Amino acid sequence: MRNLSMLTDLYELTMMSGYLNENMENRIAVFDMFIRGQKGKQSYALMAGVEQLIDYIDNLHFSSDDIAYLKSLNIFDDSFLKRLETFKFTGDIDIAPEGSIVFPNVPLVKVKAPLFETQLIETALLNIIGHQMLIATKAHRICLQAKGDAVMEFGVRRAQGPDAGIYGGRAAVIAGCSSTSNVLCGQMFDIAVSGTHAHSWVMSFPDELSAFRAYAKTFPDNCLLLVDTYDTLKSGVPNAITVFKELREKGYEPKGIRLDSGDLAYLSIEARKMLDSAGFENTLICASNDLDEFLIRELKMQGAKIDLWGVGTKLINGADIFSLGGVYKMSAMEDENGILQPKMKISDNPEKITLPGEKEVYRLYDEKGMVIADYICLEGETIEKPLTIFDPDETWKRMTLENFSHKKLSVPLYRDGKLVYNKPTLDEIIEYRKAEEKTFWPQYFRLHNPERYKIDLSLPLWTLKNDIINEHKAV
Amino acid sequence: MRNLSMLTDLYELTMMSGYLNENMENRIAVFDMFIRGQKGKQSYALMAGVEQLIDYIDNLHFSSDDIAYLKSLNIFDDSFLKRLETFKFTGDIDIAPEGSIVFPNVPLVKVKAPLFETQLIETALLNIIGHQMLIATKAHRICLQAKGDAVMEFGVRRAQGPDAGIYGGRAAVIAGCSSTSNVLCGQMFDIAVSGTHAHSWVMSFPDELSAFRAYAKTFPDNCLLLVDTYDTLKSGVPNAITVFKELREKGYEPKGIRLDSGDLAYLSIEARKMLDSAGFENTLICASNDLDEFLIRELKMQGAKIDLWGVGTKLINGADIFSLGGVYKMSAMEDENGILQPKMKISDNPEKITLPGEKEVYRLYDEKGMVIADYICLEGETIEKPLTIFDPDETWKRMTLENFSHKKLSVPLYRDGKLVYNKPTLDEIIEYRKAEEKTFWPQYFRLHNPERYKIDLSLPLWTLKNDIINEHKAV
Repeated sequence: MRNLSMLTDLYELTMMSGYLNENMENRIAVFDMFIRGQKGKQSYALMAGVEQLIDYIDNLHFSSDDIAYLKSLNIFDDSFLKRLETFKFTGDIDIAPEGSIVFPNVPLVKVKAPLFETQLIETALLNIIGHQMLIATKAHRICLQAKGDAVMEFGVRRAQGPDAGIYGGRAAVIAGCSSTSNVLCGQMFDIAVSGTHAHSWVMSFPDELSAFRAYAKTFPDNCLLLVDTYDTLKSGVPNAITVFKELREKGYEPKGIRLDSGDLAYLSIEARKMLDSAGFENTLICASNDLDEFLIRELKMQGAKIDLWGVGTKLINGADIFSLGGVYKMSAMEDENGILQPKMKISDNPEKITLPGEKEVYRLYDEKGMVIADYICLEGETIEKPLTIFDPDETWKRMTLENFSHKKLSVPLYRDGKLVYNKPTLDEIIEYRKAEEKTFWPQYFRLHNPERYKIDLSLPLWTLKNDIINEHKAV
Repeated sequence: MRNLSMLTDLYELTMMSGYLNENMENRIAVFDMFIRGQKGKQSYALMAGVEQLIDYIDNLHFSSDDIAYLKSLNIFDDSFLKRLETFKFTGDIDIAPEGSIVFPNVPLVKVKAPLFETQLIETALLNIIGHQMLIATKAHRICLQAKGDAVMEFGVRRAQGPDAGIYGGRAAVIAGCSSTSNVLCGQMFDIAVSGTHAHSWVMSFPDELSAFRAYAKTFPDNCLLLVDTYDTLKSGVPNAITVFKELREKGYEPKGIRLDSGDLAYLSIEARKMLDSAGFENTLICASNDLDEFLIRELKMQGAKIDLWGVGTKLINGADIFSLGGVYKMSAMEDENGILQPKMKISDNPEKITLPGEKEVYRLYDEKGMVIADYICLEGETIEKPLTIFDPDETWKRMTLENFSHKKLSVPLYRDGKLVYNKPTLDEIIEYRKAEEKTFWPQYFRLHNPERYKIDLSLPLWTLKNDIINEHKAV
């Protein structure tokens, strides 16, 4: 297991060193991780990366090389470096499980631990969770537009480094992709791998027909041929049909063809006709080439005859979304008397103002089990019926709920530094994601102008927030 | 060193298995790596990632676990798996050095090796080089707009996984960033690290002034204070000035302040006035908050008084550019008689048509040493004076060069599987990048409507390409 303890912003270490100097390092602090989201580009998000966060937390330690390097920077004193030698995480973490459907500005991870520890883990937590959430979210949008067709994750070559390919592949499968092309990702996470051949295979042979024949010889029962190396309809599809007939004579049923360029709507419709009239109604047409959720939707609307989608570049790096803007903000800290005091950041940008206090998020469901809202309250509040919820900005928008059920968005992950969570398998995570989807009306997932999801604050939390703002702004 | 041999698309392995079946695995093949680029978003690119490509190539091998996993997929026969046990790279690689300024559709890497080997390394090569080129390119655009001000790379928390933070930080420094906030990146590559404190530091104390005082106590000679936790101009800057005065009384000169929200133009101008009138004309104003090349340019035009830029999210993942579209295409292969035959892909998308044959790229310079064009020719052609070059599409656009010099864009990296390259230090790479910049007129680097860079083909290459297209399209 790779030790990522040094994967941290320098300022986490300078602050830790300062806290130690002030004898504040053991005060308990509470931090919330949430996403700000990309307005207009993405409304909901999919939680992912918890398993890798666990790997990170469990491996936290500073080696003697690490400490020697930090000493060489000449900014830290020996007492701080000494303290790092025995560093480990001793606190509590609560987290929304992988596969959860979540929204911007709702706390997804709560870290409650000595200030020294809460500060160190900020950078890696945001990196790990932020990356996998980004890819899971983008992949989920793509898979939804494929409307049940299989989507294969083909992105590793365009991923932002090896980890982005490996963990991005994992996140894509959580979101609904049926397989990855990335062999290392398949090996590490026991995910189905897929792929047949590239243009270079066809170009390695004197002509396309020989190339197809040779491929069919090696993989007679998994023969999916890439038909656009020279001319899709004049050469690729006819040659594929020739080889498919030869295969069938030998008792094998061909898999299909792949289109990777040109007008995929037109070419797939024409190729389908050619395959059907040759008696290959069951062979699949796979398409790739800079696909994303928008293009898949357009192709479907134009009647493209595509059964299987290979999505690479624009899935594996988020493309237009590129970052969900994850942040990690202090919401409470012990004072000198050991009493937890609410904390909040009051920014010149209103959207950067945070929610004070140690909090709990409940998701509220109607009598049919469909989501109504996320309801953020202070730790210790109880949910009682009837419950009146209101929009935290347009406070006259309110509703009183009688028949509803609720559950906590997060589960306990660590208590006193011990993992208290049974890590689900990838299949269990996928099942969880599917169950989550069923509780949302489709309008929340719409590509354009999705329904706005209600994120409400309890009256005590709303009051606390406004009191703190008024107190600071009155100065 | 991590073994990334399994970081490959499954289709590389299925093709390799097919080549072995056809007894073609040892035929010599030539592949070119180039970028397609993001039209309208980026014109030039910066080469990066060569050092990590070397690490990958030198560590290529399949462990018994890897082979057992591949066997478990039930698609490969034993002779192929046996062959993988002894896999190593035995061929030649030529590559544009890190820090080179390069352009879409110009070959940047040439791999000449047995087909079996050329095929395997495609995926990881594109991943490693593609990622670092993306970040170096984006960071270079950002640094150019900062016009000599220091740009600090602050992105690791928003990077797409740990590697994206680590190698992205390296690429950013090659491109011109002065430091990274990422401690692991600093440790691995001996790069300057920077960072002071976050909002959480301020929120940990009863009030902002106590927080600033405590920070100044721990870091009196590196005191840069974040002033926007509550109210930048009413609270943050006045409190910073109080602490700066106290520092100066103790004989320390304060570093400066950081703004992280609000209108950075207005706030920096006002903060500058306040600092100046308090006698702190030399303290720096650092700004961060979703910066990119466009926003930095706007802020400069609006007279923002910012000395130092912290750029995170939109640098570390490429944001609008998100991928340079790296590809790796076969350009030649030995036939049964051992004669190297040119190969090309003829796509329904004209921009996906490749350049056939084993090639060499020369960069041409005028008598003042400024670039004229990239000139792509077939291996073995010589450059003679006068040289007539022409646009490969609009062939009537031609010019005859008399006084010019030329150099090869690439250098030899591997010969017969042996590294034949003296890996430059990071400082040497940065010097190389600076020297490259000086050979380009600034209009090539313009954000909007940059001057189109000439990429010309030699007459023999142009003729070969058109002959092959005509031959195929005549069918």
